[in-house]
Amino acid sequence: MSKKVIIVGGVAGGASTAARLRRMDENAEIIMFERGEYISFANCGLPYYIGNIIEKREALLVQTAEGMSKKFNMDIRVLSEVIKIDPSQKKLTIKNLKTNEIYEESYDILVLSPGANPIKPPIPGINEAKNLFTLRNIPDTDAIKSFVDTKKPKSAIVIGGGFIGIEMAENLHHKGIHVTLVEAADQIMGPIDYEMASILHNHIKSKGIDLILGDGVKSFENQGKKLVLQSGKEIETDLIIFSIGVRPENQLAKDAGLKVGERGGIQVNEYLQTSDENIYAIGDAIEVVDFISGKPTMIPLAGPANKQGRIVADNICGKSEKYVGTIGTSVAKVFDMAVASTGNNEKLLKARGVKYEAIHIHPGSHAGYYPGAFPISMKMLFDPETGKIFGAQAVGYDGVEKRIDVIATAIAANLNAMDLKELELSYAPPFSSAKDPVNMFGFVASNIMNGLVSTVQWHEIDNIVKDGGILVDVREAEENELGFIKGSILIPLGELRSRLGELPKDKTIHIYCQVGIRGYNASRILIQNGYTAKNLDGGYKTYQCVFP
Amino acid sequence: MSKKVIIVGGVAGGASTAARLRRMDENAEIIMFERGEYISFANCGLPYYIGNIIEKREALLVQTAEGMSKKFNMDIRVLSEVIKIDPSQKKLTIKNLKTNEIYEESYDILVLSPGANPIKPPIPGINEAKNLFTLRNIPDTDAIKSFVDTKKPKSAIVIGGGFIGIEMAENLHHKGIHVTLVEAADQIMGPIDYEMASILHNHIKSKGIDLILGDGVKSFENQGKKLVLQSGKEIETDLIIFSIGVRPENQLAKDAGLKVGERGGIQVNEYLQTSDENIYAIGDAIEVVDFISGKPTMIPLAGPANKQGRIVADNICGKSEKYVGTIGTSVAKVFDMAVASTGNNEKLLKARGVKYEAIHIHPGSHAGYYPGAFPISMKMLFDPETGKIFGAQAVGYDGVEKRIDVIATAIAANLNAMDLKELELSYAPPFSSAKDPVNMFGFVASNIMNGLVSTVQWHEIDNIVKDGGILVDVREAEENELGFIKGSILIPLGELRSRLGELPKDKTIHIYCQVGIRGYNASRILIQNGYTAKNLDGGYKTYQCVFP
Ligand SMILES: Cc1cc2nc3c(=O)[nH]c(=O)nc-3n(C[C@H](O)[C@H](O)[C@H](O)COP(=O)(O)OP(=O)(O)OC[C@H]3O[C@@H](n4cnc5c(N)ncnc54)[C@H](O)[C@@H]3O)c2cc1C
Ligand SMILES: Cc1cc2nc3c(=O)[nH]c(=O)nc-3n(C[C@H](O)[C@H](O)[C@H](O)COP(=O)(O)OP(=O)(O)OC[C@H]3O[C@@H](n4cnc5c(N)ncnc54)[C@H](O)[C@@H]3O)c2cc1C
Ligand SMILES: CC(C)(COP(=O)(O)OP(=O)(O)OC[C@H]1O[C@@H](n2cnc3c(N)ncnc32)[C@H](O)[C@@H]1OP(=O)(O)O)[C@@H](O)C(=O)NCCC(=O)NCCS
Ligand SMILES: CC(C)(COP(=O)(O)OP(=O)(O)OC[C@H]1O[C@@H](n2cnc3c(N)ncnc32)[C@H](O)[C@@H]1OP(=O)(O)O)[C@@H](O)C(=O)NCCC(=O)NCCS
Repeated sequence: MSKKVIIVGGVAGGASTAARLRRMDENAEIIMFERGEYISFANCGLPYYIGNIIEKREALLVQTAEGMSKKFNMDIRVLSEVIKIDPSQKKLTIKNLKTNEIYEESYDILVLSPGANPIKPPIPGINEAKNLFTLRNIPDTDAIKSFVDTKKPKSAIVIGGGFIGIEMAENLHHKGIHVTLVEAADQIMGPIDYEMASILHNHIKSKGIDLILGDGVKSFENQGKKLVLQSGKEIETDLIIFSIGVRPENQLAKDAGLKVGERGGIQVNEYLQTSDENIYAIGDAIEVVDFISGKPTMIPLAGPANKQGRIVADNICGKSEKYVGTIGTSVAKVFDMAVASTGNNEKLLKARGVKYEAIHIHPGSHAGYYPGAFPISMKMLFDPETGKIFGAQAVGYDGVEKRIDVIATAIAANLNAMDLKELELSYAPPFSSAKDPVNMFGFVASNIMNGLVSTVQWHEIDNIVKDGGILVDVREAEENELGFIKGSILIPLGELRSRLGELPKDKTIHIYCQVGIRGYNASRILIQNGYTAKNLDGGYKTYQCVFP
Repeated sequence: MSKKVIIVGGVAGGASTAARLRRMDENAEIIMFERGEYISFANCGLPYYIGNIIEKREALLVQTAEGMSKKFNMDIRVLSEVIKIDPSQKKLTIKNLKTNEIYEESYDILVLSPGANPIKPPIPGINEAKNLFTLRNIPDTDAIKSFVDTKKPKSAIVIGGGFIGIEMAENLHHKGIHVTLVEAADQIMGPIDYEMASILHNHIKSKGIDLILGDGVKSFENQGKKLVLQSGKEIETDLIIFSIGVRPENQLAKDAGLKVGERGGIQVNEYLQTSDENIYAIGDAIEVVDFISGKPTMIPLAGPANKQGRIVADNICGKSEKYVGTIGTSVAKVFDMAVASTGNNEKLLKARGVKYEAIHIHPGSHAGYYPGAFPISMKMLFDPETGKIFGAQAVGYDGVEKRIDVIATAIAANLNAMDLKELELSYAPPFSSAKDPVNMFGFVASNIMNGLVSTVQWHEIDNIVKDGGILVDVREAEENELGFIKGSILIPLGELRSRLGELPKDKTIHIYCQVGIRGYNASRILIQNGYTAKNLDGGYKTYQCVFP
């Protein structure tokens, strides 16, 4: 007998489930409810449509309700909000938002993919602000675009420096609007660490964005025409985009008695079943297992939502596909740069008390002798004992997400940091180097693991010098002249062997160069000559990201 | 006691060995002999210097003998050819090519990284041709560049459509020279298969290159001013680049009694030791294990040479690092396109009698709704029983080698085709799609493995139709009008369910669409309605690459 499957939410997770389900089972009865007017739209493209980078609104609509119904022979009901689940009766209550009619529908299997909602805390004045928008769906987009196109705002404040905030800042700037970006934390782009985000801070400032870090919103005044910050600072503005994050859409699930995690995500087992075996849940609304730590987490991204939808469809059709957890691989365009990351960052590892080692490298996007190569600043976190890769981050102009994708693949396959040195990645001068940046991570990590070198971090070196530590700059004099770390002495690498006598054997010699390579070579010379040496990881370049 | 290590060959493999060795052992005595005038140069950049894409000759010289000697405290002797190895005495004979002096040098450990030489068979007239060049090193480059810049040739023939041939064709074309590319095989770029190479054939022809396939060189006449082909065709030319491949530089090793494989590569064990345990060999000169098949092969690429050098240095210093084989990941720029591949191709699998399945997909380089997305034509070969990935190929304008690198990583980690569907790759609209092309490979492969669909290949379909087979085009009428496969009938996917009655249940229904997706959806409908169906893999697009 054919089963009746109801899907709540018709976008990334929901539509993916529906499409796969039809292919798996031509006879299933499939009903998809969507509260909004549109299904299957490109959430991720919305900021770019506002910025006119994507020119046609239709381009955002991947499938229409009509087209998808026909192609997949399913019953798609838009403007239809599921307002209640009765798991014991396997019944839903639906409100038709056009007619206000309320009716019921029974199901054999229910799939929840209701997504998440922009967080909008009760900040004084927030509801009175007439120029304040959040961005999640097509109506939000239409509202912002129409405001921008008709009111022609000269200035805008984007509150929140996450993916959507950054994308909105860029797209509003692209429309000629002066943008102030306000972020309560000391950095934008939470998935990466401070020193890596600092590169982006410099970049977006160079583009003319006013960046305010470490200052939260206190209130909105004058119907949103004025923003008051915690610091007391006041900013006048024509437009506000409020994008401080999302909260899982879990009310329906909660009301139905489904288990929900600490941070509000609907809890599911490895088959993506909720605490009720006839109800599956996927996408932004669920709590997933952090692939790295095995701990519950929330990772609201489109790739996982799409893939979970496919898995659920298979499981509904009798398969036992497991969802093994989310690594959290992501990428964003930040003006001319790209930032990508995968796995856990240093902040998280520190907070969890995990023992880790961090390495920073600055390889070229491709061979330096071929035109158009740009350095990529890369960071990897790993377990110095086992080599387990905790995560990686990269910021640069080209080839950024390629390296992160390779590392994400390595993580998924349980390769360790040492294994990266052997990966055979494609090389020709326009694309990479004979030793790809990912291989370099492997080399550098294995040198640390094998005790060939030890490192000191960008945030430690100033204190070391202050406490009387020895710091040697092994770059050339010309490089030193352009900028150096206070308290360092200069001994170019080429002279080191002949000037060893100038250095004491009873103190740790700290070394730095531009990116860490010469410093590493110098460390090897010193260590093998009986010195204790530590190399500044990532060199002057990483240090300089934070202390320009 | 410090050991005396001698390295023969001072470029990719040799210089890498030397640098790592010094870092591992500050006290080792290291002598590096190089026959040429230059060490550590960027072989891979040579064609681009000839084409003026790389403007400065110095850019090709990664390290100079003087700089490297100083930095790494080693004895580097250029213009010094090792002419004999005496393994029993652990002694070398060297000829100083400047003074013609011949002398001996003893070693504790010897490393051979002599590279390979361009193949130059005794074709009639080849030695008399004054305008014929091969390209391997800096003097070759200087000779070609000076010929081009002073003789100002109007026309050139490049013989051989491999990496170097293609790069030279592009770079000579870039200099305004009319180029004819002659390849004896029916396709250029041996590492990929015919239908994939066909895309490149069309591309380079569209750039104005005369492409002659399936015709070999018979003779050179008039001092190289005329080329005569096997077909009898004659072509006048001002310049000839002869690039039909390389042969391992193995004479020294052979004369010393070291074991050499069938195709001439020096044989080594997994620690990269030759048949004499005190002699290591690496790079283009050695036979490696094909990571996919476990069989011996030759893969002359810079990445492996560099990495092998590092492994050998470690092993000389008491480690036991294994070289696990070469996958053969490569990439090349072909005018505006890129071609990349990893692992075994279909030709090889067929020749070896391996049971495989081939899939072709044409995903966008990034989300279609974000500007600048280009389709990538991709092919994967895998074992339909175990899912073992044999290899993958990709041709396109953007994001090509990224996907191949991810698959190369998956291969190295022994992930199978099914695992690709779960890889969590970075997604934002400018970079990829929520389901990355690599995930798509996973989906498509697992559908075949699970028996959800079966496919027919581009080279089979015409015969099927000729033999009376049924072929249905499930695209829209407007697409069909622009080109279709002869003998097909049109039933757009949206009408299929209502027109099932038009199709017989007792014959196999062959289906095609543009890239394979709608055909797959149609297959699912047919199969679940009791039909036997087969989908044209890669759709009209793959078919059309070969039959435009
Ligand atoms: C502006 C923006 C940019 C983004 N950029 C990226 C990016 O670059 N990369 C990336 O990986 N991710 C990005 N994302 C996140 C990505 O879009 C989400 O992770 C993904 O859409 C989640 O899928 P989902 O199915 O869980 O939720 P959604 O796609 O949001 O779908 C949920 C749907 O359920 C409907 N719904 C909710 N409750 C009910 C109910 N009770 N009854 C009926 N319908 C209901 C909602 O109306 C909504 O349409 C972006 C998101 C936004 C908003
Ligand atoms: C034009 C060109 C483009 C290329 N492009 C790419 C590319 O894009 N990607 C890629 O992966 N690979 C590419 N390669 C291949 C790559 O350069 C080689 O795989 C790599 O250099 C091999 O390293 P090797 O150390 O084995 O040999 P080599 O780098 O060639 O070094 C061998 C050296 O040994 C010296 N030698 C030989 N015999 C003796 C002796 N008896 N005494 C003293 N010295 C001796 C030779 O003079 C030579 O300099 C390219 C090669 C060429 C020529
Ligand atoms: C589009 C959407 C409805 C899913 O539909 P879909 O038919 O599953 O997806 P696609 O068109 O990408 O096709 C993928 C299918 O085609 C198959 N396929 C892809 N290329 C193929 C080829 N060349 N040959 C054969 N099959 C192929 C895949 O295997 C997959 O099928 P499967 O899941 O049964 O294995 C859903 O993902 C969606 O609504 N997306 C937009 C919303 C969204 O994701 N937003 C967030 C990101 S902006
Ligand atoms: C350049 C060459 C001499 C090798 O020298 P090298 O010092 O080993 O190579 P690099 O300058 O790339 O540095 C890599 C080393 O720096 C280390 N390193 C890289 N980035 C680092 C960083 N940020 N911090 C610390 N160490 C770093 C790596 O671990 C590696 O050292 P290891 O091998 O001891 O682990 C040799 O590869 C060569 O001659 N290349 C040109 C010829 C050639 O390859 N041709 C073919 C391709 S065109």
